[in-house]
Amino acid sequence: MGLAIGVDVGGTKVAAGVVDEDGRILDKVRYPTPASSEAATADVIGDAVEELIGRHEVSAVGIGAAGFVDENRSTVLFAPNLAWRDEPLKELLSQRVDVPVVVENDANAMAWAEYRFGAGRGEDYLVCITLGTGIGGGIVLNGQMFRGKFGFGAEVGHFRVVPHGRRCGCGQRGCWEQYASGRALVAEAQDLALTQPDIAEGLLKRAEGDVGGIEGAMITDLAKQGDPGAVWAFERVADWTGQGLATLAAILDPGRFVLGGGVSDAGDVLLEPVLASFRRNITGRSFRKVPDIRIAEFGSEAGIIGAADLARV
Amino acid sequence: MGLAIGVDVGGTKVAAGVVDEDGRILDKVRYPTPASSEAATADVIGDAVEELIGRHEVSAVGIGAAGFVDENRSTVLFAPNLAWRDEPLKELLSQRVDVPVVVENDANAMAWAEYRFGAGRGEDYLVCITLGTGIGGGIVLNGQMFRGKFGFGAEVGHFRVVPHGRRCGCGQRGCWEQYASGRALVAEAQDLALTQPDIAEGLLKRAEGDVGGIEGAMITDLAKQGDPGAVWAFERVADWTGQGLATLAAILDPGRFVLGGGVSDAGDVLLEPVLASFRRNITGRSFRKVPDIRIAEFGSEAGIIGAADLARV
Amino acid sequence: MGLAIGVDVGGTKVAAGVVDEDGRILDKVRYPTPASSEAATADVIGDAVEELIGRHEVSAVGIGAAGFVDENRSTVLFAPNLAWRDEPLKELLSQRVDVPVVVENDANAMAWAEYRFGAGRGEDYLVCITLGTGIGGGIVLNGQMFRGKFGFGAEVGHFRVVPHGRRCGCGQRGCWEQYASGRALVAEAQDLALTQPDIAEGLLKRAEGDVGGIEGAMITDLAKQGDPGAVWAFERVADWTGQGLATLAAILDPGRFVLGGGVSDAGDVLLEPVLASFRRNITGRSFRKVPDIRIAEFGSEAGIIGAADLARV
Amino acid sequence: MGLAIGVDVGGTKVAAGVVDEDGRILDKVRYPTPASSEAATADVIGDAVEELIGRHEVSAVGIGAAGFVDENRSTVLFAPNLAWRDEPLKELLSQRVDVPVVVENDANAMAWAEYRFGAGRGEDYLVCITLGTGIGGGIVLNGQMFRGKFGFGAEVGHFRVVPHGRRCGCGQRGCWEQYASGRALVAEAQDLALTQPDIAEGLLKRAEGDVGGIEGAMITDLAKQGDPGAVWAFERVADWTGQGLATLAAILDPGRFVLGGGVSDAGDVLLEPVLASFRRNITGRSFRKVPDIRIAEFGSEAGIIGAADLARV
Repeated sequence: MGLAIGVDVGGTKVAAGVVDEDGRILDKVRYPTPASSEAATADVIGDAVEELIGRHEVSAVGIGAAGFVDENRSTVLFAPNLAWRDEPLKELLSQRVDVPVVVENDANAMAWAEYRFGAGRGEDYLVCITLGTGIGGGIVLNGQMFRGKFGFGAEVGHFRVVPHGRRCGCGQRGCWEQYASGRALVAEAQDLALTQPDIAEGLLKRAEGDVGGIEGAMITDLAKQGDPGAVWAFERVADWTGQGLATLAAILDPGRFVLGGGVSDAGDVLLEPVLASFRRNITGRSFRKVPDIRIAEFGSEAGIIGAADLARV
Repeated sequence: MGLAIGVDVGGTKVAAGVVDEDGRILDKVRYPTPASSEAATADVIGDAVEELIGRHEVSAVGIGAAGFVDENRSTVLFAPNLAWRDEPLKELLSQRVDVPVVVENDANAMAWAEYRFGAGRGEDYLVCITLGTGIGGGIVLNGQMFRGKFGFGAEVGHFRVVPHGRRCGCGQRGCWEQYASGRALVAEAQDLALTQPDIAEGLLKRAEGDVGGIEGAMITDLAKQGDPGAVWAFERVADWTGQGLATLAAILDPGRFVLGGGVSDAGDVLLEPVLASFRRNITGRSFRKVPDIRIAEFGSEAGIIGAADLARV
Repeated sequence: MGLAIGVDVGGTKVAAGVVDEDGRILDKVRYPTPASSEAATADVIGDAVEELIGRHEVSAVGIGAAGFVDENRSTVLFAPNLAWRDEPLKELLSQRVDVPVVVENDANAMAWAEYRFGAGRGEDYLVCITLGTGIGGGIVLNGQMFRGKFGFGAEVGHFRVVPHGRRCGCGQRGCWEQYASGRALVAEAQDLALTQPDIAEGLLKRAEGDVGGIEGAMITDLAKQGDPGAVWAFERVADWTGQGLATLAAILDPGRFVLGGGVSDAGDVLLEPVLASFRRNITGRSFRKVPDIRIAEFGSEAGIIGAADLARV
Repeated sequence: MGLAIGVDVGGTKVAAGVVDEDGRILDKVRYPTPASSEAATADVIGDAVEELIGRHEVSAVGIGAAGFVDENRSTVLFAPNLAWRDEPLKELLSQRVDVPVVVENDANAMAWAEYRFGAGRGEDYLVCITLGTGIGGGIVLNGQMFRGKFGFGAEVGHFRVVPHGRRCGCGQRGCWEQYASGRALVAEAQDLALTQPDIAEGLLKRAEGDVGGIEGAMITDLAKQGDPGAVWAFERVADWTGQGLATLAAILDPGRFVLGGGVSDAGDVLLEPVLASFRRNITGRSFRKVPDIRIAEFGSEAGIIGAADLARV
């Protein structure tokens, strides 16, 4: 099938790359996401793709977008960060380029990249969780991307882990992403700083005494150095991550979980307490086989690689 | 493929039937489950199957058992109610009969019966929930029985809905089956009778004043007659059922749910509040397509029908 | 003891009144709370008191402030809305006026007003709950204002009702005031509008389609007219109110609860589901005597009346 | 006032003692609680008291009973373990002895013993928690035993800490005593043995491999030796204990908590994680004074000592 283009459309930037059959990015362009309108974003995507097509011979284009994508892999039904509602992205782009175009949920694209070329390689029953600002999920079953009946499969950020729990932007309460995402990590650290400033001393120092100034990268950095407050925040998030994985294992029985997204940059600081929590919370551990859990291999480029490869499939 | 035998192995009885290609049971035998030993149960299964094979020409045998079945559909790894551990059921039975034998989780068998011949017909993305003493689940994806990597998929009774919730026989806390099963229905009714005997008047009368004597069939019967205490118990269980279905919809995105098991005998008394709860709890209802929810068509024979048909597949 | 002055210090206004021995306000002044500094607020309080002293012969001054007050009724240790930390209010005011001055928690003052002249009259074991933006509490035991060892008794807004629940401004999670206050009422209504706009139709219409524009007074107004979405929001808040009262009854065993604050303006729309929830949630209802629950008689003037009367005691 | 008799009436034994003004037990008798009838238990109490009166000159008799006692300190309204309903204990005993008799809740008696002679000495705002099979509470306010309006104050075992939590014998769900009592300690240890037998190795060994055979004294003993599974169980119970104390501190603002009952036999193994949990969970720790927490000084004799002394008051 040769080369394909993958596009990762986020709230702040549009990144597109030419990806070969081994998952390597040969060329890459990047533009800011225009704030003006939905149409402008589609134009930027088209520009980026045309630019790359001018330089490489490609056989397909895959677009990964943070949102609900319809089952025909054509239209973004709803993308909270991009203000898209029923955006016919495939149709719009097909007017500008001659190769086949598919639209994918961005977490699906990331999962596929890990499945094909990264931490999920060799495991045909794979669940990939993206712990970013929120939580995204991608599921590979029997070696195929699982999309569900209507294209909304693996919206794992929004199953409930706490009845009457924290309010979620989706209008529900107690969604997993309020407990195990990057936003949750910051909430844990900030509330620790408010209630137990002695333990959060390192975090407060880094944030120059401003509780509201404690941020994710700061917590990750300090946790890697063993700072007690930062490690505590990771342990809280890891505990909820493990609980959520236990729910997913009860339903999906995968062979492996892969954890990606910004929170996973912490590596073992995250992974070890996640494993411990998962072991504590999974039903039937003493008589069932349990999946292993790994950190994702690709960082921010997983979306490009996966979207491109899914377009080739 | 012609006729097949389905066997439903439960804690109290072994029921076997000859099933035709349209899902009809042509002949049926039934024996008590021997209390003596695991081996005795396998013998009874063998006897029942041989008895039916003596009367019909069958091409395959499917055994549905309440327990964890390995991915080769051969061995029951763990069956709490049958005291089985690593019981090689396929091997044992294959020594006695000449046709192919498969072993299936009983909830899978029931789901398959509904998918092929019942309330799930025509829907290739189907999740069937059995609300019995506990909760079982069966998932059909793209028209195929989903078993997961290791054969443990759809153990939906044991995802957590309440952190620090009610103790479950599995050793965990807050499992869904502690809130939305037949056992949960009885718990709701009994606790209502303890704390609000005025509302539970009808239930208490039927149980002759003995709170501990309130049973599932009694609650179903009274609820159908509109008894306030019984209806209240169903509403509590229905609320949790709807919450659990919302979690499953977020992950699996099916086209339809089918509710079976003893609790579903209540029909609309269960279904209507489940629908209301599901609508309240699913994320993104205003922009996504949502699955419908139906009551199962087969009762206690679903296990036989499904196990037989899965053996033919 | 004759006349006394009561001062109610809030985040937006300072209101002071001359109160007679029957709890009537004879004269009243009101100034905006200065935004500039803590000292300025103390000055405004002094100005208001001097103005009233110039017109009436008073024997004592009581100041009710939303915050933690020390056990000597002298210093506001912490007042989140007034930016006070260790503000020596009694000392400051005593430099300007010749009569005795006491400082009280505002919820204590409101409770005392209800106990002496309002819905708590005649009941020497009284718990008064103020359901405002947050939740305040005042406890009368054996006819005396209960303040606890350090002056922090009855901080009932901050006992936990949901583990891992909604984040509270205090840094903890799941505090009662996140579930049963005016803020909680708005949260329930807004999230209903997001997830079930059909039920929230009336609320959305009143807020001109803007979910974020749904406010407390709007919900109260619509609920009194029977609007389904507004009534639903009240039922949610009332359910949590009743659960919290059941916790307080288990610990304090009062003879009566009085509910005040803005949420209580809804009257029976609030009271009836609170009573039902309380009955459901209190332990031992069938063999113990249970307190009754009433709506407060005084509205926003309770703080002035109670602070004045407590100064006389 | 001289000597007084205290009686501790439990489900298995009736213990009575002669107590001097310094809280010392000078003489003591003990009988099994008759299983036959409520009347028989009252007879045994009478026999025990008469026996001691025959040997000492006493001025009063106090009876501590595990149950709800009316506000006149005369009648046991409900005692689950003794099958008493409206048992007029004071009247029955007054027919047999000539000195004044009072009836008290047993947890009140234990709290009073600690207040007058034990770990609560010198602290006029004291909350004593008895962590036994269930949880009992006794509150001293301003140096007086607090009983509430109807005599049911301090029923702290039954405030809710987990919505939809574990079922309680009282018919409610999520009561504190389901999480922080001796029964909870055993539940934690047993569920650990089921789900993580590797960590519970020491517990399982001591119970000879029988999960159901793990008992409270066993866990305490192993925890004192540092066994990981036993320590883990204590940490879970201590976490909930600290959360409950934080709720009580928000409402009652005591100067000290005293922890008694069988679980407190663990001493520092319990106390240290309770202190840590309390610090994490109390609101406003950075600006409020916080109570200290101590282990009770009296063991099983606290009930006798306190009941006797309360009879003298």
